[in-house]
Amino acid sequence: MKIAIDAMGGDNAPREIVQGVMDAVAELQDLQITLVGDEKQIRPLLTSAQSIDILHTEEMITAEDEPVRAVRKKKNASMVLMAKEVKEGRADACISAGNTGALMSAGLFVVGRISGIDRPALSPTLPTLDGKGFLLLDVGANVDAKPHHLVQYALMGAIYAEKVRAIQNPTVGLLNIGTEDGKGNDLTKKVFEKLQQAPVNFVGNVEAREILNGAADVVVTDGFSGNIALKTIEGTAMTMFSMLKEVFMSSMKTKLAAGMMKSNLKELKNKLDYSEYGGAGLFGLDAPVVKAHGSSNARAIVNAVKQTYHMANLQVTETIRQRIAALNEEENGGE
Amino acid sequence: MKIAIDAMGGDNAPREIVQGVMDAVAELQDLQITLVGDEKQIRPLLTSAQSIDILHTEEMITAEDEPVRAVRKKKNASMVLMAKEVKEGRADACISAGNTGALMSAGLFVVGRISGIDRPALSPTLPTLDGKGFLLLDVGANVDAKPHHLVQYALMGAIYAEKVRAIQNPTVGLLNIGTEDGKGNDLTKKVFEKLQQAPVNFVGNVEAREILNGAADVVVTDGFSGNIALKTIEGTAMTMFSMLKEVFMSSMKTKLAAGMMKSNLKELKNKLDYSEYGGAGLFGLDAPVVKAHGSSNARAIVNAVKQTYHMANLQVTETIRQRIAALNEEENGGE
Repeated sequence: MKIAIDAMGGDNAPREIVQGVMDAVAELQDLQITLVGDEKQIRPLLTSAQSIDILHTEEMITAEDEPVRAVRKKKNASMVLMAKEVKEGRADACISAGNTGALMSAGLFVVGRISGIDRPALSPTLPTLDGKGFLLLDVGANVDAKPHHLVQYALMGAIYAEKVRAIQNPTVGLLNIGTEDGKGNDLTKKVFEKLQQAPVNFVGNVEAREILNGAADVVVTDGFSGNIALKTIEGTAMTMFSMLKEVFMSSMKTKLAAGMMKSNLKELKNKLDYSEYGGAGLFGLDAPVVKAHGSSNARAIVNAVKQTYHMANLQVTETIRQRIAALNEEENGGE
Repeated sequence: MKIAIDAMGGDNAPREIVQGVMDAVAELQDLQITLVGDEKQIRPLLTSAQSIDILHTEEMITAEDEPVRAVRKKKNASMVLMAKEVKEGRADACISAGNTGALMSAGLFVVGRISGIDRPALSPTLPTLDGKGFLLLDVGANVDAKPHHLVQYALMGAIYAEKVRAIQNPTVGLLNIGTEDGKGNDLTKKVFEKLQQAPVNFVGNVEAREILNGAADVVVTDGFSGNIALKTIEGTAMTMFSMLKEVFMSSMKTKLAAGMMKSNLKELKNKLDYSEYGGAGLFGLDAPVVKAHGSSNARAIVNAVKQTYHMANLQVTETIRQRIAALNEEENGGE
């Protein structure tokens, strides 16, 4: 098993990427890594090079680069070369913590789609109150989605939940503005009908208010709404932590009280930190492509590597390919 | 000034509605109220009836009723009679904490739209970190919005922010999946271009992550995405409070610490309680129609009454009518 990793992507690259990779290799016996990036920067950080190769390049894509353009023009960027390792069979999967849009482009144009998948979906696992977590897709790969795209998301999400997260017969919900059947906009009304026929454990509409309560294991939505939901969760959590901090700092008494439960509060923050579940998979591509969070530290990279390793090992891509082919065949046969 | 109020709507009706109305009347000199609902239930609660009339009816719309159907069939429901008071000129504005969908229907079919407004927008004011708050519209009155609807929302929201919230030259942002120009789905790309030409202080795209930080005074979006954002904020806040509670109850030490800052934590909860800003206005109707939160207590009702009073007093409806007419004229003149 070989995973190619963009050593230059993310706020803490290459230091935390390299550290995370060394930690991951120490845990997973048969794992080989190719670090793609500037050897001059990577080599000094690589205190143990066992099972780790470097593919040297000085070019890189930045957070400010226009995604599609950058992938087309910067042919030797670390992210593009990383994707090429997968495309040309030298790696089984790849990971980057860099520019999300560029990774989607590199995934689409370099790695390529699974035949029968129209649009890949960006799919993070988010925390729930009970600690189990849920998969939300799509959060922005495809902002003008058609009904059948969401059916494909449901299928891909269920396969991931079943294989990688070991959830038997995972529940699939449709993000909507009410739980009753028949609620929603034109898109969700059409998707609802299709999901009732689809080979997934569809539990109906779920409201945004309930998703962090574990309303479903897999929540499907169009990329625009999914992105709004994801960023609203992040923004609300950030705002509440800021407000809490204000409360804690408001007097000697509150400072003392906050000090008394420092470790407990840290636990709370960890519970909400969704890099614990790995990165966001780009489902529907011809191999596992994972977007690690931009602010990933070594620990987040370890989680993303493990997740990617399991996706490759448990043949998530192959299973998606088979089930999508069966679904499409059935749909065409039924007409 | 007379406001008609549905005494039977909301989780705490009629008790908290009646109490809130009495408190509001004590604060606002020239305010007259018509309480619409079951006199047998209202009268015993009405310990001071000064400036308060009762319009008796026993019929009411419940939370479970199908909105459009309920408004059509239950012609004597408290909410429908309340809207009729406005339609027939016996009241200047109205408020209900009942079934949101039914209030939208009663607003549309009984009170009626402002000429030139295609779709009303449900418009709550939500909290920001700095305590100033921002207006989000639409959060669900119109789930399949067209670009020109959002331009009307921008205009209506800016008028409300200026008049009722006393914000000079309020900033207007478009809820989107990135801040750069040209980001978004088909709808937001079209809206962006139109807003650049519109007579509002348009500051461009705003991300969901930043709206609680006060990215704009008025944030416009389609009703589906707005509903997702609103309910995600509510759900995330609820989840974090549950997690905090778990932290606080986890040991003797944390219980003690939590006790030490009880009042501070209550303050935090109040800061996030958006009934402090009043209810959600249904902008674009022929008179102020306000949806108070379903779980409103007397204090939330006072806030909603004050807000509605100011909307009527400061001629928000009249101003919207004039500026929409001017906008439509300009658009038609330009063709």
